[in-house]
Amino acid sequence: MHKPADTDLPLAVPIRDRWSPRAFADRSVAPDVLRTVLEAARWAPSASNQQPWRYVVARREDGPAFEALLACLNEINQRWAKHAPVLMLGFAKRTTPQGKPAFYAHHDLGAASLSMAIQAAAMGLQIHQMAGIHKPAMVETVGAPDDFEPMTTLALGYPGDPDTLPGELAERERAPRTRHRFDDLFFAGTWGDALPADP
Amino acid sequence: MHKPADTDLPLAVPIRDRWSPRAFADRSVAPDVLRTVLEAARWAPSASNQQPWRYVVARREDGPAFEALLACLNEINQRWAKHAPVLMLGFAKRTTPQGKPAFYAHHDLGAASLSMAIQAAAMGLQIHQMAGIHKPAMVETVGAPDDFEPMTTLALGYPGDPDTLPGELAERERAPRTRHRFDDLFFAGTWGDALPADP
Repeated sequence: MHKPADTDLPLAVPIRDRWSPRAFADRSVAPDVLRTVLEAARWAPSASNQQPWRYVVARREDGPAFEALLACLNEINQRWAKHAPVLMLGFAKRTTPQGKPAFYAHHDLGAASLSMAIQAAAMGLQIHQMAGIHKPAMVETVGAPDDFEPMTTLALGYPGDPDTLPGELAERERAPRTRHRFDDLFFAGTWGDALPADP
Repeated sequence: MHKPADTDLPLAVPIRDRWSPRAFADRSVAPDVLRTVLEAARWAPSASNQQPWRYVVARREDGPAFEALLACLNEINQRWAKHAPVLMLGFAKRTTPQGKPAFYAHHDLGAASLSMAIQAAAMGLQIHQMAGIHKPAMVETVGAPDDFEPMTTLALGYPGDPDTLPGELAERERAPRTRHRFDDLFFAGTWGDALPADP
Protein backbone atom coordinates (compact mmCIF):
# COMPACT_ATOMS: atom_id res chain seq x y z
CA MET A 1 0.00 0.00 0.00
CA HIS A 2 1.06 3.53 -0.82
CA LYS A 3 -0.26 6.46 1.22
CA PRO A 4 1.45 9.70 0.28
CA ALA A 5 0.89 13.01 2.08
CA ASP A 6 -2.29 14.72 0.93
CA THR A 7 -0.78 17.96 -0.29
CA ASP A 8 -0.60 20.14 -3.41
CA LEU A 9 2.86 21.43 -2.49
CA PRO A 10 5.90 19.84 -4.17
CA LEU A 11 7.32 17.86 -1.26
CA ALA A 12 10.49 15.86 -1.92
CA VAL A 13 9.41 12.36 -2.96
CA PRO A 14 10.64 10.44 0.12
CA ILE A 15 9.04 13.04 2.44
CA ARG A 16 5.78 12.86 0.51
CA ASP A 17 5.83 9.05 0.45
CA ARG A 18 6.82 8.46 4.09
CA TRP A 19 4.06 7.14 6.28
CA SER A 20 3.63 4.76 9.21
CA PRO A 21 2.10 1.44 8.10
CA ARG A 22 1.20 -1.45 10.36
CA ALA A 23 1.04 -4.03 7.57
CA PHE A 24 4.48 -5.24 6.46
CA ALA A 25 5.27 -7.55 3.56
CA ASP A 26 6.87 -10.90 4.35
CA ARG A 27 10.16 -9.74 2.88
CA SER A 28 13.42 -9.50 4.74
CA VAL A 29 15.56 -6.34 4.83
CA ALA A 30 19.04 -6.90 3.41
CA PRO A 31 21.94 -5.98 5.74
CA ASP A 32 23.19 -3.23 3.44
CA VAL A 33 19.71 -1.70 3.21
CA LEU A 34 19.39 -1.73 7.01
CA ARG A 35 22.83 -0.19 7.31
CA THR A 36 21.90 2.63 4.93
CA VAL A 37 18.73 3.39 6.92
CA LEU A 38 20.78 3.60 10.12
CA GLU A 39 23.43 5.73 8.41
CA ALA A 40 20.74 8.34 7.73
CA ALA A 41 20.22 8.65 11.50
CA ARG A 42 23.97 8.94 11.99
CA TRP A 43 24.08 12.09 9.85
CA ALA A 44 21.14 13.84 11.53
CA PRO A 45 21.94 17.19 13.17
CA SER A 46 22.00 17.55 16.96
CA ALA A 47 22.64 20.18 19.63
CA SER A 48 26.43 20.74 19.78
CA ASN A 49 26.71 17.67 17.51
CA GLN A 50 26.29 15.43 20.57
CA GLN A 51 24.34 12.74 18.65
CA PRO A 52 22.50 11.59 21.78
CA TRP A 53 20.70 8.72 20.01
CA ARG A 54 21.40 5.00 20.30
CA TYR A 55 19.45 2.18 18.65
CA VAL A 56 19.36 -1.54 19.34
CA VAL A 57 18.31 -3.51 16.29
CA ALA A 58 17.07 -7.03 15.59
CA ARG A 59 15.93 -8.71 12.39
CA ARG A 60 13.14 -11.27 12.50
CA GLU A 61 15.53 -13.95 11.31
CA ASP A 62 17.59 -13.29 14.45
CA GLY A 63 14.93 -15.28 16.34
CA PRO A 64 15.33 -14.84 20.12
CA ALA A 65 16.86 -11.34 19.81
CA PHE A 66 13.84 -10.23 17.76
CA GLU A 67 11.40 -11.86 20.18
CA ALA A 68 13.10 -10.08 23.07
CA LEU A 69 12.70 -6.68 21.42
CA LEU A 70 9.12 -7.49 20.43
CA ALA A 71 8.30 -8.25 24.07
CA CYS A 72 9.12 -4.59 24.92
CA LEU A 73 6.06 -3.42 22.94
CA ASN A 74 2.59 -3.24 24.39
CA GLU A 75 0.13 -5.92 23.32
CA ILE A 76 -1.65 -3.81 20.71
CA ASN A 77 1.61 -3.00 18.96
CA GLN A 78 2.86 -6.60 19.21
CA ARG A 79 -0.16 -7.79 17.24
CA TRP A 80 1.14 -6.20 14.04
CA ALA A 81 4.81 -5.46 14.77
CA LYS A 82 5.60 -9.18 15.13
CA HIS A 83 5.34 -9.36 11.33
CA ALA A 84 7.82 -6.52 10.71
CA PRO A 85 11.19 -7.77 9.45
CA VAL A 86 13.18 -5.37 11.67
CA LEU A 87 12.55 -3.90 15.12
CA MET A 88 14.63 -1.21 16.81
CA LEU A 89 14.63 0.27 20.30
CA GLY A 90 15.58 3.95 20.51
CA PHE A 91 17.33 5.52 23.50
CA ALA A 92 18.26 9.13 24.36
CA LYS A 93 21.38 10.05 26.31
CA ARG A 94 20.48 11.73 29.60
CA THR A 95 23.60 13.86 30.03
CA THR A 96 25.94 15.99 27.94
CA PRO A 97 29.68 15.29 27.73
CA GLN A 98 29.95 17.99 30.45
CA GLY A 99 27.69 15.96 32.73
CA LYS A 100 24.72 18.34 32.52
CA PRO A 101 21.15 17.21 31.70
CA ALA A 102 20.91 16.77 27.92
CA PHE A 103 17.95 19.06 27.32
CA TYR A 104 17.81 18.43 23.57
CA ALA A 105 18.25 14.64 23.65
CA HIS A 106 14.57 13.82 23.03
CA HIS A 107 14.48 16.45 20.28
CA ASP A 108 17.56 15.06 18.59
CA LEU A 109 16.44 11.43 18.89
CA GLY A 110 13.25 12.47 17.10
CA ALA A 111 15.32 14.01 14.33
CA ALA A 112 17.51 10.90 13.96
CA SER A 113 14.48 8.60 13.80
CA LEU A 114 12.79 10.74 11.17
CA SER A 115 15.98 10.79 9.13
CA MET A 116 15.80 6.98 9.11
CA ALA A 117 12.11 7.04 8.20
CA ILE A 118 12.70 9.32 5.22
CA GLN A 119 15.70 7.25 4.08
CA ALA A 120 13.57 4.11 4.37
CA ALA A 121 10.83 5.69 2.26
CA ALA A 122 13.42 6.66 -0.36
CA MET A 123 14.26 2.96 -0.71
CA GLY A 124 10.68 1.68 -0.79
CA LEU A 125 10.53 0.73 2.89
CA GLN A 126 8.63 2.39 5.73
CA ILE A 127 9.09 2.86 9.47
CA HIS A 128 6.34 2.89 12.09
CA GLN A 129 7.44 4.50 15.36
CA MET A 130 5.76 3.47 18.61
CA ALA A 131 5.47 5.05 22.03
CA GLY A 132 3.31 2.19 23.38
CA ILE A 133 6.19 0.35 24.99
CA HIS A 134 7.46 -1.10 28.28
CA LYS A 135 10.39 1.13 29.12
CA PRO A 136 11.93 -0.81 32.04
CA ALA A 137 11.81 -3.92 29.82
CA MET A 138 13.69 -2.05 27.10
CA VAL A 139 16.53 -1.27 29.49
CA GLU A 140 16.69 -4.76 30.92
CA THR A 141 16.35 -6.57 27.58
CA VAL A 142 19.32 -4.92 25.92
CA GLY A 143 21.39 -3.99 28.98
CA ALA A 144 21.20 -0.23 28.42
CA PRO A 145 23.44 1.88 30.72
CA ASP A 146 21.76 4.20 33.25
CA ASP A 147 22.74 7.24 31.20
CA PHE A 148 20.39 6.23 28.36
CA GLU A 149 16.64 6.72 28.55
CA PRO A 150 14.36 4.25 26.74
CA MET A 151 12.15 6.31 24.47
CA THR A 152 10.80 4.70 21.30
CA THR A 153 10.45 1.56 19.26
CA LEU A 154 10.57 1.43 15.48
CA ALA A 155 9.30 -1.21 13.07
CA LEU A 156 11.01 -1.22 9.66
CA GLY A 157 10.10 -3.12 6.53
CA TYR A 158 8.45 -3.11 3.14
CA PRO A 159 4.80 -2.09 3.32
CA GLY A 160 2.34 -4.98 2.99
CA ASP A 161 -1.30 -5.80 2.46
CA PRO A 162 -3.73 -4.15 4.92
CA ASP A 163 -5.89 -7.28 4.69
CA THR A 164 -3.29 -9.14 6.73
CA LEU A 165 -4.16 -6.91 9.72
CA PRO A 166 -6.86 -7.60 12.32
CA GLY A 167 -10.12 -5.86 11.29
CA GLU A 168 -9.93 -2.63 13.28
CA LEU A 169 -6.27 -2.10 12.38
CA ALA A 170 -6.96 -2.78 8.70
CA GLU A 171 -9.54 0.00 8.82
CA ARG A 172 -7.04 2.43 10.39
CA GLU A 173 -4.46 1.45 7.77
CA ARG A 174 -6.83 2.55 5.00
CA ALA A 175 -8.11 5.72 6.70
CA PRO A 176 -6.99 9.03 5.18
CA ARG A 177 -3.98 10.72 6.75
CA THR A 178 -4.84 13.90 8.65
CA ARG A 179 -2.92 16.91 9.91
CA HIS A 180 -3.73 20.23 11.59
CA ARG A 181 -4.40 23.06 9.19
CA PHE A 182 -1.30 24.85 7.94
CA ASP A 183 -2.37 28.11 9.58
CA ASP A 184 -2.74 26.40 12.96
CA LEU A 185 0.92 25.30 12.95
CA PHE A 186 2.84 28.15 11.28
CA PHE A 187 2.58 31.83 12.11
CA ALA A 188 3.96 35.02 10.62
CA GLY A 189 5.89 37.05 13.21
CA THR A 190 3.22 36.83 15.90
CA TRP A 191 1.42 33.83 17.38
CA GLY A 192 -1.77 33.17 15.46
CA ASP A 193 -1.06 35.38 12.43
CA ALA A 194 -1.33 33.52 9.13
CA LEU A 195 1.50 33.55 6.62
CA PRO A 196 0.60 35.28 3.36
CA ALA A 197 -1.05 32.88 0.90
CA ASP A 198 0.82 31.84 -2.21
CA PRO A 199 1.02 34.46 -4.93
CA MET B 1 29.30 25.79 -0.48
CA HIS B 2 28.31 22.14 -0.60
CA LYS B 3 29.17 19.83 2.29
CA PRO B 4 27.56 16.40 1.88
CA ALA B 5 27.72 13.66 4.49
CA ASP B 6 31.03 11.80 4.38
CA THR B 7 29.68 8.30 3.72
CA ASP B 8 30.01 5.45 1.25
CA LEU B 9 26.43 4.34 1.82
CA PRO B 10 23.79 5.41 -0.72
CA LEU B 11 21.90 8.00 1.32
CA ALA B 12 18.95 9.71 -0.37
CA VAL B 13 20.28 12.87 -2.00
CA PRO B 14 18.55 15.47 0.25
CA ILE B 15 19.65 13.53 3.36
CA ARG B 16 23.21 13.29 2.08
CA ASP B 17 23.25 16.98 1.09
CA ARG B 18 21.63 18.41 4.23
CA TRP B 19 23.98 20.28 6.51
CA SER B 20 23.93 23.32 8.81
CA PRO B 21 25.70 26.30 7.23
CA ARG B 22 26.25 29.67 8.85
CA ALA B 23 26.96 31.50 5.58
CA PHE B 24 23.82 32.32 3.61
CA ALA B 25 23.62 33.86 0.16
CA ASP B 26 21.97 37.27 -0.18
CA ARG B 27 18.98 35.70 -1.91
CA SER B 28 15.43 35.84 -0.66
CA VAL B 29 13.23 32.75 -0.21
CA ALA B 30 10.08 32.88 -2.31
CA PRO B 31 6.79 32.49 -0.41
CA ASP B 32 5.91 29.21 -2.16
CA VAL B 33 9.35 27.77 -1.38
CA LEU B 34 8.98 28.73 2.29
CA ARG B 35 5.51 27.22 2.33
CA THR B 36 6.78 23.93 0.91
CA VAL B 37 9.52 23.75 3.55
CA LEU B 38 6.92 24.27 6.29
CA GLU B 39 4.58 21.74 4.69
CA ALA B 40 7.29 19.10 5.16
CA ALA B 41 7.11 19.72 8.92
CA ARG B 42 3.34 19.48 8.78
CA TRP B 43 3.53 15.90 7.50
CA ALA B 44 6.08 14.68 10.03
CA PRO B 45 4.92 11.80 12.25
CA SER B 46 4.17 12.36 15.95
CA ALA B 47 3.01 10.44 19.00
CA SER B 48 -0.76 9.86 18.60
CA ASN B 49 -0.56 12.28 15.66
CA GLN B 50 -0.66 15.21 18.09
CA GLN B 51 1.67 17.39 15.98
CA PRO B 52 2.93 19.31 19.02
CA TRP B 53 5.11 21.68 16.97
CA ARG B 54 4.46 25.35 16.22
CA TYR B 55 6.72 27.74 14.32
CA VAL B 56 6.76 31.52 14.10
CA VAL B 57 8.40 32.71 10.90
CA ALA B 58 9.82 35.99 9.60
CA ARG B 59 11.56 36.86 6.36
CA ARG B 60 14.36 39.43 6.36
CA GLU B 61 12.28 41.70 4.14
CA ASP B 62 9.68 41.79 6.92
CA GLY B 63 11.97 44.24 8.72
CA PRO B 64 10.90 44.70 12.36
CA ALA B 65 9.38 41.20 12.64
CA PHE B 66 12.67 39.70 11.50
CA GLU B 67 14.67 41.91 13.85
CA ALA B 68 12.44 40.85 16.74
CA LEU B 69 13.06 37.15 16.05
CA LEU B 70 16.78 37.78 15.57
CA ALA B 71 16.95 39.41 19.00
CA CYS B 72 15.91 36.05 20.53
CA LEU B 73 19.23 34.51 19.49
CA ASN B 74 22.39 34.77 21.54
CA GLU B 75 25.06 37.17 20.33
CA ILE B 76 27.23 34.54 18.65
CA ASN B 77 24.33 33.26 16.58
CA GLN B 78 23.12 36.77 15.74
CA ARG B 79 26.48 37.51 14.12
CA TRP B 80 25.76 35.17 11.21
CA ALA B 81 22.00 34.55 11.43
CA LYS B 82 21.23 38.22 10.74
CA HIS B 83 22.17 37.48 7.11
CA ALA B 84 19.78 34.52 6.75
CA PRO B 85 16.72 35.36 4.64
CA VAL B 86 14.32 33.52 6.97
CA LEU B 87 14.27 32.95 10.73
CA MET B 88 11.87 30.70 12.63
CA LEU B 89 11.21 30.10 16.30
CA GLY B 90 10.16 26.56 17.22
CA PHE B 91 7.84 25.72 20.14
CA ALA B 92 6.71 22.40 21.65
CA LYS B 93 3.25 21.91 23.18
CA ARG B 94 3.52 21.11 26.87
CA THR B 95 0.33 19.07 27.24
CA THR B 96 -1.63 16.44 25.33
CA PRO B 97 -5.29 16.98 24.30
CA GLN B 98 -6.09 15.02 27.49
CA GLY B 99 -4.22 17.58 29.59
CA LYS B 100 -1.32 15.29 30.49
CA PRO B 101 2.35 16.27 30.07
CA ALA B 102 3.28 15.80 26.41
CA PHE B 103 6.25 13.50 26.93
CA TYR B 104 7.07 13.21 23.23
CA ALA B 105 6.71 16.89 22.31
CA HIS B 106 10.46 17.61 22.18
CA HIS B 107 10.98 14.41 20.23
CA ASP B 108 8.30 15.28 17.72
CA LEU B 109 9.42 18.89 17.32
CA GLY B 110 12.86 17.50 16.45
CA ALA B 111 11.28 15.31 13.79
CA ALA B 112 9.28 18.18 12.30
CA SER B 113 12.33 20.45 12.15
CA LEU B 114 14.42 17.77 10.46
CA SER B 115 11.66 17.16 7.95
CA MET B 116 11.93 20.87 7.05
CA ALA B 117 15.71 20.67 6.85
CA ILE B 118 15.62 17.72 4.45
CA GLN B 119 12.92 19.39 2.34
CA ALA B 120 15.03 22.54 2.24
CA ALA B 121 18.08 20.57 1.10
CA ALA B 122 16.00 18.93 -1.62
CA MET B 123 15.29 22.43 -3.00
CA GLY B 124 18.87 23.73 -2.75
CA LEU B 125 18.38 25.55 0.56
CA GLN B 126 19.69 24.66 4.01
CA ILE B 127 18.55 25.10 7.61
CA HIS B 128 20.77 25.76 10.61
CA GLN B 129 19.06 24.98 13.91
CA MET B 130 20.15 26.79 17.06
CA ALA B 131 19.81 26.09 20.75
CA GLY B 132 21.74 29.23 21.75
CA ILE B 133 18.65 31.35 22.33
CA HIS B 134 16.85 33.51 24.87
CA LYS B 135 13.76 31.48 25.70
CA PRO B 136 11.76 34.04 27.71
CA ALA B 137 12.36 36.53 24.89
CA MET B 138 10.95 34.02 22.40
CA VAL B 139 7.70 33.77 24.35
CA GLU B 140 7.37 37.50 24.83
CA THR B 141 8.35 38.46 21.29
CA VAL B 142 5.69 36.38 19.57
CA GLY B 143 3.09 36.17 22.35
CA ALA B 144 3.28 32.40 22.74
CA PRO B 145 0.63 30.87 25.03
CA ASP B 146 1.77 29.24 28.30
CA ASP B 147 1.10 25.79 26.90
CA PHE B 148 3.94 26.14 24.39
CA GLU B 149 7.58 25.78 25.36
CA PRO B 150 10.20 27.80 23.46
CA MET B 151 12.75 25.29 22.18
CA THR B 152 14.68 26.12 19.02
CA THR B 153 15.47 28.68 16.39
CA LEU B 154 16.03 27.91 12.72
CA ALA B 155 17.78 29.91 10.02
CA LEU B 156 16.72 29.06 6.46
CA GLY B 157 18.22 30.17 3.17
CA TYR B 158 20.46 29.38 0.25
CA PRO B 159 24.01 28.51 1.33
CA GLY B 160 26.54 31.29 0.77
CA ASP B 161 30.23 32.02 0.72
CA PRO B 162 32.14 31.09 3.91
CA ASP B 163 34.40 34.10 3.32
CA THR B 164 31.49 36.34 4.34
CA LEU B 165 31.74 34.93 7.89
CA PRO B 166 33.95 36.30 10.71
CA GLY B 167 37.31 34.43 10.72
CA GLU B 168 36.70 31.78 13.35
CA LEU B 169 33.24 30.96 11.97
CA ALA B 170 34.62 30.73 8.41
CA GLU B 171 37.05 28.13 9.66
CA ARG B 172 34.27 26.10 11.31
CA GLU B 173 32.23 26.36 8.11
CA ARG B 174 35.03 24.67 6.15
CA ALA B 175 35.93 22.05 8.77
CA PRO B 176 35.03 18.44 7.91
CA ARG B 177 31.72 17.10 9.27
CA THR B 178 32.18 14.51 12.00
CA ARG B 179 29.98 11.85 13.57
CA HIS B 180 30.40 9.06 16.12
CA ARG B 181 31.43 5.73 14.64
CA PHE B 182 28.55 3.63 13.33
CA ASP B 183 29.23 0.89 15.87
CA ASP B 184 29.03 3.37 18.75
CA LEU B 185 25.46 4.35 17.81
CA PHE B 186 23.80 1.15 16.56
CA PHE B 187 23.83 -2.22 18.28
CA ALA B 188 22.66 -5.72 17.38
CA GLY B 189 20.28 -7.13 19.98
CA THR B 190 22.41 -6.18 22.98
CA TRP B 191 23.95 -2.86 24.00
CA GLY B 192 27.49 -2.61 22.58
CA ASP B 193 27.27 -5.51 20.11
CA ALA B 194 28.18 -4.49 16.54
CA LEU B 195 25.86 -5.19 13.64
CA PRO B 196 27.31 -7.62 11.12
CA ALA B 197 29.43 -5.85 8.50
CA ASP B 198 28.15 -5.60 4.93
CA PRO B 199 28.41 -8.84 2.97
